[in-house]
This record gives sequence, C-alpha cells and structure tokens, in this order.
Amino acid sequence: MLSNRIKKIEPSMTLAITAKAKALKQSGVDVISFGAGEPDFPTPAYIRNEAIQKIEEGHIGYTAASGIAELKTAICKKLSQDQGVTYEPSQIVVSTGAKQALFNSFQVLLNPNDEVLIGVPYWVSYPELVKMADGVPVLVETKAENQYKLTVDDLEEHRSPQTKAIILNSPNNPTGVVYSQEELRAIAEWAVEKGIWVISDEIYEKLVYGAAKHVSIASLSEDIYKQTIIINGFSKAYAMTGWRIGYSAAPLEVTKGMTSLQSHVSSNPNTISQYAGLAALEKESGEVEAMRLVFEKRKNLMLDKISEIPDVTCIKPEGAFYIMIDCASYLSKFGFESASELAQAMLDQASVAVIPGDAFGMNTYIRLSYATSESLIEAGLDRIKAFLTK
Amino acid sequence: MLSNRIKKIEPSMTLAITAKAKALKQSGVDVISFGAGEPDFPTPAYIRNEAIQKIEEGHIGYTAASGIAELKTAICKKLSQDQGVTYEPSQIVVSTGAKQALFNSFQVLLNPNDEVLIGVPYWVSYPELVKMADGVPVLVETKAENQYKLTVDDLEEHRSPQTKAIILNSPNNPTGVVYSQEELRAIAEWAVEKGIWVISDEIYEKLVYGAAKHVSIASLSEDIYKQTIIINGFSKAYAMTGWRIGYSAAPLEVTKGMTSLQSHVSSNPNTISQYAGLAALEKESGEVEAMRLVFEKRKNLMLDKISEIPDVTCIKPEGAFYIMIDCASYLSKFGFESASELAQAMLDQASVAVIPGDAFGMNTYIRLSYATSESLIEAGLDRIKAFLTK
Repeated sequence: MLSNRIKKIEPSMTLAITAKAKALKQSGVDVISFGAGEPDFPTPAYIRNEAIQKIEEGHIGYTAASGIAELKTAICKKLSQDQGVTYEPSQIVVSTGAKQALFNSFQVLLNPNDEVLIGVPYWVSYPELVKMADGVPVLVETKAENQYKLTVDDLEEHRSPQTKAIILNSPNNPTGVVYSQEELRAIAEWAVEKGIWVISDEIYEKLVYGAAKHVSIASLSEDIYKQTIIINGFSKAYAMTGWRIGYSAAPLEVTKGMTSLQSHVSSNPNTISQYAGLAALEKESGEVEAMRLVFEKRKNLMLDKISEIPDVTCIKPEGAFYIMIDCASYLSKFGFESASELAQAMLDQASVAVIPGDAFGMNTYIRLSYATSESLIEAGLDRIKAFLTK
Repeated sequence: MLSNRIKKIEPSMTLAITAKAKALKQSGVDVISFGAGEPDFPTPAYIRNEAIQKIEEGHIGYTAASGIAELKTAICKKLSQDQGVTYEPSQIVVSTGAKQALFNSFQVLLNPNDEVLIGVPYWVSYPELVKMADGVPVLVETKAENQYKLTVDDLEEHRSPQTKAIILNSPNNPTGVVYSQEELRAIAEWAVEKGIWVISDEIYEKLVYGAAKHVSIASLSEDIYKQTIIINGFSKAYAMTGWRIGYSAAPLEVTKGMTSLQSHVSSNPNTISQYAGLAALEKESGEVEAMRLVFEKRKNLMLDKISEIPDVTCIKPEGAFYIMIDCASYLSKFGFESASELAQAMLDQASVAVIPGDAFGMNTYIRLSYATSESLIEAGLDRIKAFLTK
C-alpha cells in the first residue's frame, strides 16, 4: 500500500529513544537521560521577549517562502563576521530547522542513483535524507588515528563517477570532533578537483572547546564556495530547538531551486521564529558564550567520570555536546550483539538513557549527551559504572 | 547542475504575486490587493495569550516528531464532533502547515508514475507536490453545470490502471464551491469500488455560507474511511497562517510512514504553535464564527459589486474566501493571451492585485480574495470596473 520510498526510510532512532525515556520519566521512573540532542537551557530571555512582542503586535502572517528579508540580511552579516564568507540575502533560504535545509539540499542536487559520501559515524538523518532524494548514501569508514574525521584518502577510496556530494559535519555529531583548517583545505581541494559538492553542516559551530576553532570550508577558496551549501540553524547555539528555525547559504541557482521546493512543501518557516531568530543574531550579548562555558565544564566533568570506568575508551570531543564511548569489552562480557541491546539493558536495569551507536553506524559505542546538569552527569555516570562493572 | 526533480517544479505562483504586491505597497504605491490567501484578522487573542504563556514558561523544546499527545487528542475530539469520524491519536500527524501534511501524503502513497486525479481549477501546489513524489498529476476538467465540482463521470473518464489517488478540496480554493453529501457519496462509492485513495483537503471547512454544509468524505462509510487522508490546519479558520500548523488524519499504516518521513524532513512542527493550536481547539468561544460572519458579509458585497461589471461572470462561492471571475470577453478586448497578462496590467495600470487563473489551470479567470476590508473591496472593485470598461 505504501510507497517504496517510505519503506526504505528508517524512523529517526535518536528521537524514538529520547521519547521512550521521556515517557518512562512521566510514568514516574527516575530515569537519568544522556539522550538529549538539545540544550537543557531555556531559550535566552532576550529572544523570548522579542517573540512575545511580535505575537502581541500580531504581525505573524505569511512571509516570503524563503524567509523575511531582515533575517536573511542578518544571516549574511553573521556569515561574513563569523565565517568570513560573503553571501547575498538572495542566497539564503530560511527553513523549518536545519533538517529542512538539509532536505532541500539533497532534493535540489540529487538525481536517481547519485551517490553521497557520508563519514561513519554519521548523524542519523543523513542517509535517510539522501535516500528520500533517490540518492545512494555511501558510508565511509573513518579511522581512530584521524579522530574519526574524513580524509581525502577515505573519500577518494569511495569516489565513483556517480559521486555527487559529500557531507561534512564539524563540530561533529556524535563524536564532537572538529576539523582543522588544514584538514578542510585538503578536502576542499579534492572536492574542487573532482567537481563534488560539499554539504557543510555547521549547526554546532558555536560550541567548540579548548584550542579548537570552527572553520567553514566555504571560506577556503572561491572555487569551493561555488560548490558548498552551508547548513546552520538556531537550535543548538541559542537553545531554540522547538522553534524549528534554520537556514542554508548556497550558490544562487541552488537557492532558487530550494525556494521553489520549499514554497510547496511547507511555505515560509514559522513567522514568530523568524523574528526570534533575527533577535537572536542582532541582540545577542554574551548569552551564547555563557552556555558554551557551561558545556565545556560539563564536558571536562564527563571525561573525568568516564576515566573512572574500566575498559572503556572514548573519542575526545572538541565541540558539540556529545561523547562517544566504546563499550566493546562490555558487549562481550554481557553477550550483547550490539550497543542497542546494551542501551536497552541500561535503561531497563539502571534507569539511564543513552543513544546506542548503532544509530550512527558504530555499534560498539554509546553516545552520551552532556546537555544535562552536573549533578545528573555525576549520578548518571555512577549508575553506568555500577551497571557495567557489576 | 540541479536535479531533474527540481527542474520540473514551478514556484508557487500565488505566493510570488502576493509578494510582488506587498513589495509595491512597501515602496509607497497605493495597491489594493485581492491576492491574499490568508485571513486579514489577527490571530484571536486567546490563542496568542496561550502562546505567550508557553514562551514565558519556556517549555518549548523538541516534541515527538508527529506532535504532542494533547494536541493529537484534541484533534481527534474535534474530528469526532465536527466531522463525525473516529480517529485515535496514533492516526494523527501534526505538521508544519497543511502543506506539509499534503507533502507527507503523496510521499507516503505514490510510487513512480502513479497517477493522481486533480480537478481543474486546482490549488497551485497540488500538481507540484504530486510531481515531487514522482507521481503524475492528471488534470480533470470540470464543468460549469456542475459548479466546477468533480463528478464520478469526470473521474472515470480519466481513470487508468495507474490511478492511485484523487484530491478533493471542499470548500474549494479557488472557486469557493462546496461538495454536497450526495456528491461526496457518489465519489466515495466509486473510489471504494476502484480502490483509489482520497486526499481530502478540508482546510476551509469552517468557512461555509448560506445553506452549504461541510461534509468530510471519510464520514460516509467504513470503507472510504480506510482509503481517505483528511488534511486540515489552523491557518484559515483561526487566522494562524504564520504559525505553520496543520495535520493529517489517516489509517495507521499511513500515519506511521508519515511520522518516519517527517522525523527526518523537519522533525516536530513548531512547539509554540502546537500549544497555540491546542488552545485554538480547546478554548474557542465564538471567535471562529465571528470571523465567518464577516467573510459572509464581504462575499455578498463582492457579488453585488461584481454584478455591476458588464460582461463578466463568476462562480458563485459557498465557502472559503475567494471568487473566480471569468474575464474572457476582456481578454479579447485587450488582446491578452491569458489572465496573467490581464493581472499584470491591472497591477501596473490600476494598482489592483489579483491572482490570474492560470495559476489554477483556468486562464480566462482571475481569483479575488475577500480576506480584506469592505472599504477596500468597494474601492478595489471600482478600480477593476474602471480599468476593464475604460
């Protein structure tokens, strides 16, 4: 009865597990969740106040399908200041979250059987969004010695005449690793030489720690700029997940296609959220940095606590708010096939919710989010240690 | 460079023209617009207050991809009370406007080359949404003597082994006609006999006038219920266009596919809008009916004023907030090929914005929206009369 398209698509595993943990909590179980893919902070008051004012004034009807001009202009200014890349407002499409910006990208670029190279581990929706556009996700294994970042060698090994695009995600979900300028430059030169598009998902841009620095690949040369679609949004940096507001910056021809597509799929993104996003960019005064500092402190606490658990290793994060922990030795100990069985057992027996790495293509790992309080981090990791070493 | 998919898709013509009229207005030109596809009322205060409260409280993070349980429950109650159809919350998907609910429907139902029968005139996005799902939109001419409503004869004439679904839109955009229970029953029996899905777009449900009564085809039998997807939303009845909140009600298997799809395309619809929609349904106390009465009065005024213009006829509307006027004789008079040239000339020379019927597949007609004030209706139709008869 259903289309073959829909039969190929897997539901978002991270959302499902987060929902299950929420349901358990609501039913009274004392669950500690490391599942969250969203900041635990409320949206900063200056943003909420702007939204409230717009709702009171009542100017909340339809806008242009690709978003209001003021917001597109503010996004261009931000991209120039933060990433050193120059875009015109006509090159911006404001979307219902960064997800829709990714959806738009693949729909606009891919013909049937076009291949998209995706590094493993990958964010859950990438392969599904490629499949929805009749493309073929080609999973590229990354190496521990490269901190699980894609290299030109990895990419070249999987390149074919059908390779149309690659996805870069830095800072990375789920690993938290951040690509250096040199690493990006090498990939950019390869992509330009081979004529391959880069979808650069920069949603965690504002959350980098220590010496790491976020660089947008589009800033590295005129040539790579012409083959890059920057994806970003307000959810992670401004704690605005439920507002569903993101954007893409791309060559004009791509933007035109996206605008046409979006005008039919959903029309303009939420009008209140567009004004909230405008305020987020224009009236910010330290709120983002304050949240980043809290995340950094939690990350260090997480690493300390994880180091107390015997026989696990983790990928050291430099950004985002996740840590991937390799539990291979405990899979053997418990006789589990993969991390999803381990995660299930943890939830049932220790009341701790984690995301199994299966969701990201690494099935001996679990992903822990530290978008939660220090006291819950301590208590939750104590539970995990007790469960694993019992 | 772009995908073939995107090359096939036309941008939404109504949005483009509305945007152009807005831009002219902002530049100081005294444009009277009959283009609007949205109520000119602000969102009722009781809904806005609820949204403001949610923003103040800060509970505006991610929700389940298909929407919050409370809203789905409230939608089921509404469908039972208003349409006499029984759905479980698991059969509801809350979306980013009714547009995304339509997008979800075609993506979930259609395989390549599946055909969808669409009555002419049609709402602009239907054919494009079908094409996006690799389907084939089959345009079905309707007859003046049937008030441009689809009949079983029309449908049967265009049925093929590839026919997968039909779209019903009652009250209709752009004609404003409303299907009677008998008309729907005949179509339902045909659809059940032939095993064809019905996408029932009921977005203008609350806006019916005189003796007309809205009926949902899903209510007519157990059998047609199993082959119907009801599409509805908050934009038109509750003046909530910019909030982007709509929904579908469908058999469970369809809902599951839609939920999976939506979890990747955009995740949950805007959280604030979900709570606003919940309030819209649960706390309504006459606001919708008050707006309907204003629309009805304006419709009658429109018909009076149009009757003063020689040599035009119009399709008498019973619902929504549009009137289609046949300007065939004036196309000849001015030597215009189609209504889009007429609409262009009207905007340039008479500063009146109307939507050319080309957008809906009827290129001698113009569509006038009466989602505007009585004084502007009077002045605007005077301008149109002067322009046409000059």
